[in-house]
Amino acid sequence: MNRESKTSVGVIGLGAMGMGVAMTLVRNGFEVHAYDVRPEAVLKIVDSGGVSSTSPASMAQLVDVLIVVVVTAEQTDAVLFGENGAAPHLKSGSVVIASATVSPDYAKSLAKRLESIGVLMIDGPLSGGAAKAMSGEMTMMTSGSPAAYAKCEEVLEAIAGKIYRLGDEAGPGSVVKMVNQLLAGVHIAAAGEAMALAIRAGANPDQVYEVITNSAGNSWMFENRVAHILAGDYTPLSAVNIFVKDLSIVLDYARKSVFPLPLSATAHQMFLQASAAGHGLEDDSAVIKNFPGINLPEPKLAGGI
Amino acid sequence: MNRESKTSVGVIGLGAMGMGVAMTLVRNGFEVHAYDVRPEAVLKIVDSGGVSSTSPASMAQLVDVLIVVVVTAEQTDAVLFGENGAAPHLKSGSVVIASATVSPDYAKSLAKRLESIGVLMIDGPLSGGAAKAMSGEMTMMTSGSPAAYAKCEEVLEAIAGKIYRLGDEAGPGSVVKMVNQLLAGVHIAAAGEAMALAIRAGANPDQVYEVITNSAGNSWMFENRVAHILAGDYTPLSAVNIFVKDLSIVLDYARKSVFPLPLSATAHQMFLQASAAGHGLEDDSAVIKNFPGINLPEPKLAGGI
Repeated sequence: MNRESKTSVGVIGLGAMGMGVAMTLVRNGFEVHAYDVRPEAVLKIVDSGGVSSTSPASMAQLVDVLIVVVVTAEQTDAVLFGENGAAPHLKSGSVVIASATVSPDYAKSLAKRLESIGVLMIDGPLSGGAAKAMSGEMTMMTSGSPAAYAKCEEVLEAIAGKIYRLGDEAGPGSVVKMVNQLLAGVHIAAAGEAMALAIRAGANPDQVYEVITNSAGNSWMFENRVAHILAGDYTPLSAVNIFVKDLSIVLDYARKSVFPLPLSATAHQMFLQASAAGHGLEDDSAVIKNFPGINLPEPKLAGGI
Repeated sequence: MNRESKTSVGVIGLGAMGMGVAMTLVRNGFEVHAYDVRPEAVLKIVDSGGVSSTSPASMAQLVDVLIVVVVTAEQTDAVLFGENGAAPHLKSGSVVIASATVSPDYAKSLAKRLESIGVLMIDGPLSGGAAKAMSGEMTMMTSGSPAAYAKCEEVLEAIAGKIYRLGDEAGPGSVVKMVNQLLAGVHIAAAGEAMALAIRAGANPDQVYEVITNSAGNSWMFENRVAHILAGDYTPLSAVNIFVKDLSIVLDYARKSVFPLPLSATAHQMFLQASAAGHGLEDDSAVIKNFPGINLPEPKLAGGI
């Protein structure tokens, strides 16, 4: 691989997903400029061979592709258009890959604002979790112009194992991510509800998990999150508050379109209840703590006395 | 295989699942006595080598194991204890495998009533669909006494690919089936809600299916039932009204236990709405027809003009 020929890439946001994206790019020989509000996260990238940036603005003029891996639309706006934001300093013809889970309407308006200053955009939400981000095997639900893809194709191929191209403008990428989050949120809440009933009914939770994961009642989320419940481990891989936010995006979008979503609305209330009860920063499987009068599995001790 | 050594088995109820169970038993060399309210269904078994019965009562004295594969607790009660019911004529020490989806409380009380007349019972709901019943590869969620299992082990092994043994009395089999149906019902309704929103948002439904079935939003039911929606084919493999019934069982059980099930209650309302609108006998994926103002995929024509 010829390091010199590689695109210069900026990564803003070095959380669970962004850290993996930046590390993967360094590993693949890209010149990586990294920024995060936490300097210790930036130092990790520098130790691996990346370049630190003191602000989005300062990296903007140095990169051909800028990946924004923050959590919300508000954060996306701040790092691009806020104080020391990147947008005014981006090179003409450069590409922003916008990867936060946001409303399709926000993705569309962001693409227009960037276009007005000569910058291309890929609407590019991520899926797959921190481990897959680190190994370059994430799934990306993307849409954007052929010119935007042409500019960042090698970057996308480095960071994602599966890249869905869903349309030639911003919007469809975020629509499909929204549909995925609707299902993910409902399935996590349903997994909690089902396991709560099973425990209430006196069933052996481990046995229920074994049967359901081999039956028609299974879901990707049931299989993944009920394992946390059985281990009594609510270390946040993805937190309750993420679904408070993501189901808000789904419900706000549908409400504007005057469209009913009864299950999403119910699941959202369940995550709100869990968050209001103080579990917002725990793993999203903590939604099962809404259900009273049952004994959840205790944490398994990792050996010792 | 020695036909003479095989148990004599009765099958009551020759619907989608029962027909497959009876055919599988005939194929495996059992002496099979079959009864259904529809004589044409019984004739199919006779044509394959089984024996017809004119009533549950008339077959009862001839069998060592009786499998009841009807739909509801009411039907189970009728064929065992109603007019010409089997129970009073069953041999002492014979076994009833009760396979309808019923409340765990009903399963327990049924076992007691049978025990009082010297008959054993396996609480044995089925899962897997008609094709797997026909090939002898169903999943069974069972519980019962060791004596009951000993009596019907070779029958269970013939009809099921996977037999979960969940406890040594009636109840746990039906509890786990109930938990499975809770999840299945919520996931089907969620699949409808998610696809409805995707279509409303202008996404390509085939593309959404491709992405979701490879993402964390997937469920067994999404993968299976959305295929029916995309084909515009609502031929009932399992009907809307089955979930009107099964989620009633779940909710009645929880209510007696004073336990909240917000998602199950919402999904139940969605199936009730679909049924009230005239879709009760269509495939359960017809729950998507609740959502107004969207164009669902049209039936694919099977060739021709």
